[in-house]
Amino acid sequence: MVCINKIRIGIAGYGNLGRGTELAVIQNPDCELTCVFTRRNPSGLKILTENVPVYSLSDASLHIDKADVLILCGGSRRDLPEQGPALAKHFNTVDSFDTHAKIPGYFDAVDEAARTGGKVSIISAGWDPGMFSIMRAYGEAFLPSGKTYTFWGKGVSQGHSDAIRRIEGVLDAKQYTVPVEAAVNAVRSGSDPELSVREKHIRECFVAAKPGADKAAIENDIKTMPDYFAGYDTVVHFISMEELERDHAGIPHGGFVIRSGRTGVDLSSQHISEYSIKLDSNPEFTSSVLVAYARAAYRLSGEGLSGAKTVLDIPPAYLSPKSGGELRKELL
Amino acid sequence: MVCINKIRIGIAGYGNLGRGTELAVIQNPDCELTCVFTRRNPSGLKILTENVPVYSLSDASLHIDKADVLILCGGSRRDLPEQGPALAKHFNTVDSFDTHAKIPGYFDAVDEAARTGGKVSIISAGWDPGMFSIMRAYGEAFLPSGKTYTFWGKGVSQGHSDAIRRIEGVLDAKQYTVPVEAAVNAVRSGSDPELSVREKHIRECFVAAKPGADKAAIENDIKTMPDYFAGYDTVVHFISMEELERDHAGIPHGGFVIRSGRTGVDLSSQHISEYSIKLDSNPEFTSSVLVAYARAAYRLSGEGLSGAKTVLDIPPAYLSPKSGGELRKELL
Repeated sequence: MVCINKIRIGIAGYGNLGRGTELAVIQNPDCELTCVFTRRNPSGLKILTENVPVYSLSDASLHIDKADVLILCGGSRRDLPEQGPALAKHFNTVDSFDTHAKIPGYFDAVDEAARTGGKVSIISAGWDPGMFSIMRAYGEAFLPSGKTYTFWGKGVSQGHSDAIRRIEGVLDAKQYTVPVEAAVNAVRSGSDPELSVREKHIRECFVAAKPGADKAAIENDIKTMPDYFAGYDTVVHFISMEELERDHAGIPHGGFVIRSGRTGVDLSSQHISEYSIKLDSNPEFTSSVLVAYARAAYRLSGEGLSGAKTVLDIPPAYLSPKSGGELRKELL
Repeated sequence: MVCINKIRIGIAGYGNLGRGTELAVIQNPDCELTCVFTRRNPSGLKILTENVPVYSLSDASLHIDKADVLILCGGSRRDLPEQGPALAKHFNTVDSFDTHAKIPGYFDAVDEAARTGGKVSIISAGWDPGMFSIMRAYGEAFLPSGKTYTFWGKGVSQGHSDAIRRIEGVLDAKQYTVPVEAAVNAVRSGSDPELSVREKHIRECFVAAKPGADKAAIENDIKTMPDYFAGYDTVVHFISMEELERDHAGIPHGGFVIRSGRTGVDLSSQHISEYSIKLDSNPEFTSSVLVAYARAAYRLSGEGLSGAKTVLDIPPAYLSPKSGGELRKELL
């Protein structure tokens, strides 16, 4: 008989992603949840798993022996830029930092902290960045003469929904990013089209306005909002708060990465690869990915490595609880 | 200015896969073809690239300084079981050994040889085994509660075509493996069906018979052939040699790996991921994948590693000519 210690997982931040991570840990028998850190009052936080202590995030450095890997479930805008480097000094960490343009800087900050602490930090895991990044890398490597296309949706964009909620007169809102089917089909056909931002995605908004609000003004504010909506074809539907809660409560998402490339004499052979996902719950899938990368962080740390890594640095085998021999026999 | 040596690629075996590899090397500016080994008479072999020496495969050990990585392009049935371990002693190697059931034994044999020689060997690269294996591994890791389905086709199976050609009265033949659309759609819908071998694929055969051959006997021999056709719904079309050459000259292939899984409280959220490929030329795509893994073998060897690896052991970043910083900026 062989006794193997479970990987002790800690969660930092108990929102949608933190709750999803807690559920994902239960699905992985080689992992166990051993602590939760929160910015709220710990005594007021009720979590699902019994007998797991909840600590104040500000006391995290007092509990570095409580987890093998800490999964950072805070937001990319305000939480992770500060928490990532601070916690990487004390814990092996995994996060889903997803502000694409800021990833290089975030990597450097986390890398320095993790090296100082002798820890491993895997940043920007999830699906985009994450699995979609991996598919873009494989696509380029296997078909160097070609083009990569990423489409998102149909799914809820939290950032865009939040942006609508900040408009005067808006009670609540959900924004769906919807890929334009004609564009997707053109890419799938191998015609390698040049596509503008507007040609790839539509933005569809469901808005509950406050009583007496100026709907025309709200619609105009949405459609002209720079960065978020101005470059897109945007559709706005005004619905009641009841309808919003009844029909738009979920957080589904999805998307595809398509690589179209050519090989052979005169590049006469065409090849298309496509990776697609259809998710009922964006945060639950993302947190499930984070737990798999926690397994990888634990192993890399056990091998004596330190510093920041991304999903592109992790061999697929490190995500699996199976041994090399089992993987070769069952999956190869 | 920085000068970087190109990765010197050798090819062992100059059939469809070897020719595809030669073309793939041209598409990768950080690689160059430096030698070809053949079992035929080297002086009689004309290759595409100018000024590249062709040697007899039996003299390979005399030319170990001619290539950083040798790509083994022989067949899995007769060539690789012998050539793989023999060449792994002297060269870093990459191959596409694809007899799934024999991969564990082949791995062990190559591993021992590569360790003895202090070399790195990446075995069973390509698309299945290869990229499909990777997708099965990611699928399981991200959605541990779920099912994985692999479909092949529509595409030409060389092994099945060869089997038909061995039947008495057959002049030439092409066999297509065709996924059953109803089965694929059931999987995509998330209904997690149990599917028998027969329910997943049809085998469609195009056969040119010799003049006067007994077509009914040929059809019966095909449909009842154990291992190859007996468990499947098989369709046989007799056509002329002219039609076969005109309409069935290519070697297209493709397929999909679908993971269907559930997360959340009561596993109430469903997620589907799908990776699909559509290839004009199976050997050209496979050899393009092999060249990307040659880059990884070269790097791992440069880091001082030795022994056999599979695609599951290789981080995606090792396949790319881009630096870690470039990958984080451009692809993550």
